[in-house]
Amino acid sequence: MKNPPKIAIVGATGLVGRTMLQVLLQRIPNATISLYASHKSAGSPIVEGENKYTVQLLSTDNLSTEYDIALFSAGSNISRQYAPLFQQKGTIVIDNSSCWRQDSSVPLVVPQVNSQSLKNHKGIIANPNCTTIQCVVALNSLQKTFGIERIIYNSYQSASGAGANAIMQLQRQYGCYDNIIPHIDDFCEDGYTKEEHKMIFETQKIFEKNIATTATCVRVPIQYGHGVSINVQLSKKTSFEEIDQILKQDRNITYYNDNTYPTPKDAKGKDNVLVGRLRKDNTHDNCYNLWVVADNIRKGAATNAVEIAEILL
Amino acid sequence: MKNPPKIAIVGATGLVGRTMLQVLLQRIPNATISLYASHKSAGSPIVEGENKYTVQLLSTDNLSTEYDIALFSAGSNISRQYAPLFQQKGTIVIDNSSCWRQDSSVPLVVPQVNSQSLKNHKGIIANPNCTTIQCVVALNSLQKTFGIERIIYNSYQSASGAGANAIMQLQRQYGCYDNIIPHIDDFCEDGYTKEEHKMIFETQKIFEKNIATTATCVRVPIQYGHGVSINVQLSKKTSFEEIDQILKQDRNITYYNDNTYPTPKDAKGKDNVLVGRLRKDNTHDNCYNLWVVADNIRKGAATNAVEIAEILL
Repeated sequence: MKNPPKIAIVGATGLVGRTMLQVLLQRIPNATISLYASHKSAGSPIVEGENKYTVQLLSTDNLSTEYDIALFSAGSNISRQYAPLFQQKGTIVIDNSSCWRQDSSVPLVVPQVNSQSLKNHKGIIANPNCTTIQCVVALNSLQKTFGIERIIYNSYQSASGAGANAIMQLQRQYGCYDNIIPHIDDFCEDGYTKEEHKMIFETQKIFEKNIATTATCVRVPIQYGHGVSINVQLSKKTSFEEIDQILKQDRNITYYNDNTYPTPKDAKGKDNVLVGRLRKDNTHDNCYNLWVVADNIRKGAATNAVEIAEILL
Repeated sequence: MKNPPKIAIVGATGLVGRTMLQVLLQRIPNATISLYASHKSAGSPIVEGENKYTVQLLSTDNLSTEYDIALFSAGSNISRQYAPLFQQKGTIVIDNSSCWRQDSSVPLVVPQVNSQSLKNHKGIIANPNCTTIQCVVALNSLQKTFGIERIIYNSYQSASGAGANAIMQLQRQYGCYDNIIPHIDDFCEDGYTKEEHKMIFETQKIFEKNIATTATCVRVPIQYGHGVSINVQLSKKTSFEEIDQILKQDRNITYYNDNTYPTPKDAKGKDNVLVGRLRKDNTHDNCYNLWVVADNIRKGAATNAVEIAEILL
């Protein structure tokens, strides 16, 4: 690829798009960055540090520039329409929507877990669901070392996972203010929500193993950061002490032991996954409970996409 | 017992004590009620509807009145010291603290589940932990019909579970404002908290069966109501449809099906346990996911204690 790389952000004025810009400036500082959004924001100025941008209109008439990489975070409909158009011009699309995640020809990538799947991409790469990302990073060393038989997820997800408007609603005391809502995304026929199905399907796709997985996803009234309580059943017999050591040595997580623990506030603005409260689940052989938090907008979305871009560059 | 019954509330100025008074007035309206608290509140007037009370000082010099029943909600230390003094005068103590729950001679009672254990009381009856109460009510019909092999609890607990001060802190934006805290009560040697151990131990004691149970308890920034996500493994094979029917017919719960669900706001001020989001957990035979909410101050504490009193009277 050329140096400096040319990178577009599609959906640049949303919560994730703005954060993609911030993370790009921090991690790929030599990139030439262009910002795209709908007619609602096109023409608006965006200032990030010493950098000034004008948001360009995303339209089929306005796609002449050839980018090395385009980071998409504008929803599934925009991804479905525009990702192939960028792809046809030789741009590699890293898409944060759920549009392509189930497509078997599209790699679903968390760089710390399955960067090897990137080598088979055909121009579109999917960024996983925010909650899935932090969980597979937390579980990766256990899957690699012992194998995982079964996962039971329970999530505690912040309002920012539903976009900037949801945070406004939280602040204005509408929506999920002073309440918790066991319902994220639409319901499916089996009574699970799409969010729960994403966690199940994406965990299996990223680990390239049909791990028995179930999930309950709940919105809680905090602005940033998702927490997930994980009950994991390992394939091989091990001990609390051995897992404790492996998590301590895992460079892809920040591990809290000895009755310390991370909260969403600790994760805010950070690019890493925080893991704590390891406990033996005595109700079953080889089962353990874990508590995992991450900044859903950074590691759960923007940072993961930029990390994929770093590998491609 | 005499008619009208004489009932004392010890710890009458706390969040649960005040609610005990309200529930008593609603459910045992002919009772003669006396209120006790520490020197900080003694002498204060308490008005509830058309009823006026003066809080009496709880002290060993001030226990001449013979009550039929005393409802305690003043913490374990007060219960340890004063419950035996009331008991010696022939008063039946219903204690909301954790002081006596593990005592094998003290029944731990949820009237909808194990009222039969009341017949063995020796003058002290323990009210279970708030989170435990709503879970065993929700699971009772499944335990009776199919038996339960294993339970995995994940709780979403409101600030009011930590008392009136915690709500003040929430409102004043200290404490767990805009954050979730995976830590309720003290840590034990095995890494679980006392709250988690209460859920495990008390579920087993109330169901009179050593059901394999694990728990993760998390404080969320809402004022009232606890949510619990339950993964339950049944002993006998059954079907989603059969469980759906049994929960519909269970008069001790309010059941939400067809993709409706209860939230803590729905539970506020109510005396019942709300159950929803029944789903087959396809990762294991006979496993199901459930979502349970209740008003932790009413059914989780005050109402349960008053319901025990109703049976005794």
